[in-house]
Amino acid sequence: MKFVINRDLLLLNLTYVSRALSTKTPMPVLTGIKIEAYENSVFLTASNNEISIQTIIKDKRQVRIEENGIVVVPGKYFIEIIRKIEAREVDFSTFEENIVKILADRSNFTLNALEKDNYPLISFADSETVVHMDVGNLKSIIRKTTFATSLSETRVILTGVSFVADDRKLEVIATDSFRLAKKYLINDVEFPKINAVIPSKSLDELNRIIDENETPIEIHFSPSKALFKYKNILFQTRLIDGSFPNTSNLIPVDFLTSIKFNKNEIIAAIERASLFTSLDSFCIIKFTLNSDKTIEIASTTNEIGAVKEEVIPLACSNVLHFQIAFSSKYILDAIKSMDSTEITIHFTGEIKPFIITGDYDVNLTQLILPVRVS
Amino acid sequence: MKFVINRDLLLLNLTYVSRALSTKTPMPVLTGIKIEAYENSVFLTASNNEISIQTIIKDKRQVRIEENGIVVVPGKYFIEIIRKIEAREVDFSTFEENIVKILADRSNFTLNALEKDNYPLISFADSETVVHMDVGNLKSIIRKTTFATSLSETRVILTGVSFVADDRKLEVIATDSFRLAKKYLINDVEFPKINAVIPSKSLDELNRIIDENETPIEIHFSPSKALFKYKNILFQTRLIDGSFPNTSNLIPVDFLTSIKFNKNEIIAAIERASLFTSLDSFCIIKFTLNSDKTIEIASTTNEIGAVKEEVIPLACSNVLHFQIAFSSKYILDAIKSMDSTEITIHFTGEIKPFIITGDYDVNLTQLILPVRVS
Repeated sequence: MKFVINRDLLLLNLTYVSRALSTKTPMPVLTGIKIEAYENSVFLTASNNEISIQTIIKDKRQVRIEENGIVVVPGKYFIEIIRKIEAREVDFSTFEENIVKILADRSNFTLNALEKDNYPLISFADSETVVHMDVGNLKSIIRKTTFATSLSETRVILTGVSFVADDRKLEVIATDSFRLAKKYLINDVEFPKINAVIPSKSLDELNRIIDENETPIEIHFSPSKALFKYKNILFQTRLIDGSFPNTSNLIPVDFLTSIKFNKNEIIAAIERASLFTSLDSFCIIKFTLNSDKTIEIASTTNEIGAVKEEVIPLACSNVLHFQIAFSSKYILDAIKSMDSTEITIHFTGEIKPFIITGDYDVNLTQLILPVRVS
Repeated sequence: MKFVINRDLLLLNLTYVSRALSTKTPMPVLTGIKIEAYENSVFLTASNNEISIQTIIKDKRQVRIEENGIVVVPGKYFIEIIRKIEAREVDFSTFEENIVKILADRSNFTLNALEKDNYPLISFADSETVVHMDVGNLKSIIRKTTFATSLSETRVILTGVSFVADDRKLEVIATDSFRLAKKYLINDVEFPKINAVIPSKSLDELNRIIDENETPIEIHFSPSKALFKYKNILFQTRLIDGSFPNTSNLIPVDFLTSIKFNKNEIIAAIERASLFTSLDSFCIIKFTLNSDKTIEIASTTNEIGAVKEEVIPLACSNVLHFQIAFSSKYILDAIKSMDSTEITIHFTGEIKPFIITGDYDVNLTQLILPVRVS
């Protein structure tokens, strides 16, 4: 195996696949990156048990293959080498089956390869169940939902994000059972039938790789995995088994009052009001609508002190005396996920779930359960 | 106690004193910031057992005192409050002796004060043993020496930096017994007699506060402490007891060969050559001068692989076959502390200490002990 490759391009592609590199693993070979040279292309593959990523480099001006072959290099060291090399080109070759030689300018590295026969066979097969969308749309879906998934493994299904498509609608839902984020897309053409739960972590990793909003991305759904095809990158994640809870009746439609705020102003007030609260106690704050249409956001922590914030809303559909308590962390997560400069909180009752919407956040609903306080 | 103060100025001064704030301490009151209002000034004080910092705010356009007093506020919370406040002015007052009220725009905080009678009496007294210098000079001394101090508490004296002044010379030395950094200043006027060891951590904290290179700074040396006076800030640190080792005969003056390098080129080559070495083994690399005047920097780690870097020096005073091994971490620390674009390594023998100098790093010597390898 022998090829000469542009250093910057190699590093960029290594950065992509490194997102799937295992650190702690019962399979040591998965700490490696599989490098294959054939058909005038170099393939880089990395995998942990959740995600597998493959990139293909085949631009003849950037890579020149002199001898085909397969090798698995120690991922961390190989990336560090390429990162530290300043040369324009890297000369990569193998000898004695399991020794890798890397030459660049006046640098000469030899690196012990991992046993390539141990590397698992990973299929990046297409599926007939394909969704096409813009990267920008997918990034927006990820950013507005994954934060609401559960971090606890007690109900594994809630660590994932539900993708359900039918007819011309794709509905994406995340919930940790205390809050829920729901975003949907309406398409011009029919979606294939989809009912899949994608691990939240996989989506967050994918979001770090995809960056060009206008670029198209394909999502291939198979029974146990989803494959994202983007530029020269194949990003594959396993799906979570099980059925996602039915949340269709959870979201209220009749409201006691809807209150509109300037987004940055309400964020700042809530952040100040929760300065003395602690994560242990879910950062509970009290929200009071007064009959003079002012809002008070307050919290008290006996040992430390108390905060009272007064906020004047932009609008209030129904002025009544109303008090509710909820987690400041949950509401901040929800509001910060929005792109709108003005957001509206719709309340249904003092101990009933409430929702948050934004004028520019089309088809997005953030729902939060309040807490009972004395 | 009651005053109104400019929010930005208060936050800036809190950031300064926060460098001395205790987190874990047997004296809970030291997690607090002492605030005093008198003589038309506000004094902020924080202290851990090593460092005490006091700032004085007395600009009448920025602070308006309505009632004198003393209070100790919980440091972390108070800083967070002021950081999160967006108002231009903050209204600070106390009531019922130990309750602090902070008003800013529509925010209203009450904060439980700490018991002010428990706060230790800290004297920031001047001394007659004063050194005057520019902040730029002091920052340069700190940056070029503190990294060479010991991290281990087994010989506490080596965790400090020695300041010795006599006649018109101030000599500053740090060593962990494997390497040594020495910088001296020659003054136009006489220095007072000084022989003090300042904790390295204190100097690093000070370096984060002082930033205006042209500003003068005063250092007041007392038997057990040093006080730095800079702008409106008093920064005081305890000194380390004991006598610093005599290192005057350690630095070689006759050299076998002196080799000059481009600084960035040698740094890059050493960084690549030590990619496979581990911190546990002190990152040992081998340095070979060949008779064709090329340099080879190499390391081998059996499990991972090997690196060879060839470097062509800018100059070499004496071409001979020469090989030496040393810690790449130590030499990188030393070279990176230098401002020169060209640096020279002066060797005295294959198992003898060597020194590094730079044309623009006047009166600076970095010394490193080699290691014996097979």
